[in-house]
Amino acid sequence: METTPLNPARRRLLAGSAGALAAAGLGATGVVRASEPATSKAAVPAATTAAKPLPPYAAWKDADSVIVHSANTIETRRSAFGDGVITPTRELYVRNNLPPPDASILDDRDAWSVEIQGVKNPRTLTLGELKTLGVDTMATVLQCSGNGRGFFPHKPSGTQWQVGAAGCVLWTGIPVRTLVEYLGGIEGDPTYMTGTGGEQLPEGLDPNTLTVERSVPRDTLQDAMLAWEMNNEPLSLAHGGPLRLIVPGYTGVNNVKYIKRLAFTAEQSPAKIQQTSYRLAPMDAKPGPDQPSAWAMGPKSWITAPGAEGAPVKAGRALVRGVAFGGIHAVKRVDVSIDGGKTWKQAALVGPDLGKYAWRQFALAVDLPAGQHTLASRVEDTEGNVQVENRVENVRGYLNSSWRDHALTVNVS
Amino acid sequence: METTPLNPARRRLLAGSAGALAAAGLGATGVVRASEPATSKAAVPAATTAAKPLPPYAAWKDADSVIVHSANTIETRRSAFGDGVITPTRELYVRNNLPPPDASILDDRDAWSVEIQGVKNPRTLTLGELKTLGVDTMATVLQCSGNGRGFFPHKPSGTQWQVGAAGCVLWTGIPVRTLVEYLGGIEGDPTYMTGTGGEQLPEGLDPNTLTVERSVPRDTLQDAMLAWEMNNEPLSLAHGGPLRLIVPGYTGVNNVKYIKRLAFTAEQSPAKIQQTSYRLAPMDAKPGPDQPSAWAMGPKSWITAPGAEGAPVKAGRALVRGVAFGGIHAVKRVDVSIDGGKTWKQAALVGPDLGKYAWRQFALAVDLPAGQHTLASRVEDTEGNVQVENRVENVRGYLNSSWRDHALTVNVS
Repeated sequence: METTPLNPARRRLLAGSAGALAAAGLGATGVVRASEPATSKAAVPAATTAAKPLPPYAAWKDADSVIVHSANTIETRRSAFGDGVITPTRELYVRNNLPPPDASILDDRDAWSVEIQGVKNPRTLTLGELKTLGVDTMATVLQCSGNGRGFFPHKPSGTQWQVGAAGCVLWTGIPVRTLVEYLGGIEGDPTYMTGTGGEQLPEGLDPNTLTVERSVPRDTLQDAMLAWEMNNEPLSLAHGGPLRLIVPGYTGVNNVKYIKRLAFTAEQSPAKIQQTSYRLAPMDAKPGPDQPSAWAMGPKSWITAPGAEGAPVKAGRALVRGVAFGGIHAVKRVDVSIDGGKTWKQAALVGPDLGKYAWRQFALAVDLPAGQHTLASRVEDTEGNVQVENRVENVRGYLNSSWRDHALTVNVS
Repeated sequence: METTPLNPARRRLLAGSAGALAAAGLGATGVVRASEPATSKAAVPAATTAAKPLPPYAAWKDADSVIVHSANTIETRRSAFGDGVITPTRELYVRNNLPPPDASILDDRDAWSVEIQGVKNPRTLTLGELKTLGVDTMATVLQCSGNGRGFFPHKPSGTQWQVGAAGCVLWTGIPVRTLVEYLGGIEGDPTYMTGTGGEQLPEGLDPNTLTVERSVPRDTLQDAMLAWEMNNEPLSLAHGGPLRLIVPGYTGVNNVKYIKRLAFTAEQSPAKIQQTSYRLAPMDAKPGPDQPSAWAMGPKSWITAPGAEGAPVKAGRALVRGVAFGGIHAVKRVDVSIDGGKTWKQAALVGPDLGKYAWRQFALAVDLPAGQHTLASRVEDTEGNVQVENRVENVRGYLNSSWRDHALTVNVS
């Protein structure tokens, strides 16, 4: 992949005698040794695993930082999160419910239009016009509803995500409340805010079977945003550009990509993705509109270092690090265990606080003797909600926040 | 440049009939139209100007977001700053005092070593060991001492930077105070903290003529950091990887790249770069150790939109935006003028506050009638220091914070 520069982990791999020829060969393809940008933190380079290739619309992702499950599902490796709070765009997970629209929708970003309904003065506005009406930036944790599905013992259908269908990124756009005020305020007393994606749907099919249209409680509009930049770059196609609805604290699917319609509605969307998908059905129930929807996220954290994905850990002093978020509330504290949850110590929250919807980095200095250790973390939010010990079993494997499932067993030598 | 994906501005340029063949030609080189990552915000693509090529060690920069002055001096375009607070790594300016070391120093980052002197237990530590001792993340404005030199009428020697030898980025590393405590504290009562860069120096020359070694007041250690990540990716060679000293609030040159020695010293470094370069000499004086050194930055701001670099501005409602920082103090307020400084209005600070060393984004909604307007901004810090109206003239053109010089004249139609 010539657009993805060779990273140091892969270079180390090639540095052995057996790799010398391969390294020379790579050099010949035009990879300039001196042109390294900031590079992958992943412990296990993709070259050592039977990696699927990145799909064309996400070919610019850092192949060594991600696990490609399919063309529409790409996960960040646990070892790639680093300690810098904001997930780099080229390392962020991707989950598309449908193939993305043609990239030509980015040719003239400002011409993209979005229809606003359920306000006193409903209108269609271009992105160019939105940009003159208001601007703000916020950090949110973006997490797929199914993140952690891979830990459910009943192997629910869907991508077997581990920890990495999540990231913390900066969004820039217009606050939805600013836009609503500009259009005269909400009309009546609708219960939901409903966003509709701009994916191309096949002809001759009931659109409700495929359309990405999600309804969330109306009051989420207070902190929601129509975003055109992520991490201070124009929003890529893979992440919903030119315009995406951001509902902070709500799982990824509610953050509708390529948004073409935002409506305040009495009812939830009739689309399948709202009515029966993304429902938390108990194991003996059928997913459907009577079951809770995958909406707000709860408190969750996981260890990112040391020892993720088999990275070697030396006996002695170590800094146990990870990420923690509260979902819709801020992080109050994080505790860390190095004995699988028998005893806990409070970790330090490090780095800048980017607001209640962002995650916090945490760190605890420990002495790790040789042997096997299970590292775990547990976050408490400012409302006193504590990360659950055990997953809540459900048919499709949504919203796994179990600290026990997310613990990391490391071999120290 | 195959590692730099084609951006929308350039694609628009190629979309005209004259550009059709060129576009087809580019397609044939393997640039996949559907593989666009987040792309440049620059108004005027490099393709329209007689652009110098990016040097190999920074070939991964976004060519359309930067102005390449030379192999060691690359500036971010005013139109590329965006509204997302953190400057993307591929858009950040580069200024090297010497050519960077060979990229092989990144082959085994954890093996890099740094000598700590002037503490009770002086030692050489590897980066691998530093990573077990402490970790924090902070945002700082990184700005070249000569940023704004291009506005000095006497055309000082050196790069003619306009606004873009600056950015706001996240650093992750070990706080220097944590490291100093670990080594038993400071020995005696030294006046300075002195960092030495690891660049290769030519043989047979007095090292003081070339070595990058800078001294700053000792107390800067309280907030300083030895950083191994920038924007949550391993620090690139272009920006000082594997390890860089960060002295927040101090100009770029004090943030020593490839740091191999950090010492607490009674005297300032004897190096030329400390003794005579980076001195603020009045126009009739010779730069030398009696003149103030380019150390702490003062309050400064500039407009980034609308209309930067000739981007079209339509008459009517507009959001005037920009960036503002206090140097060593936090931003208190920003005022904006659309009549060249005759009248001012307070702008809103938008986005998350990343701490006193970061910059803030600001925005003011205005009505811009057709015609020519001069947009200006003026920041005040929490200590009551206000951005200066006029530059302080000095031989080498350092520390230009003049709001008048940085004003932006736009044509509205």
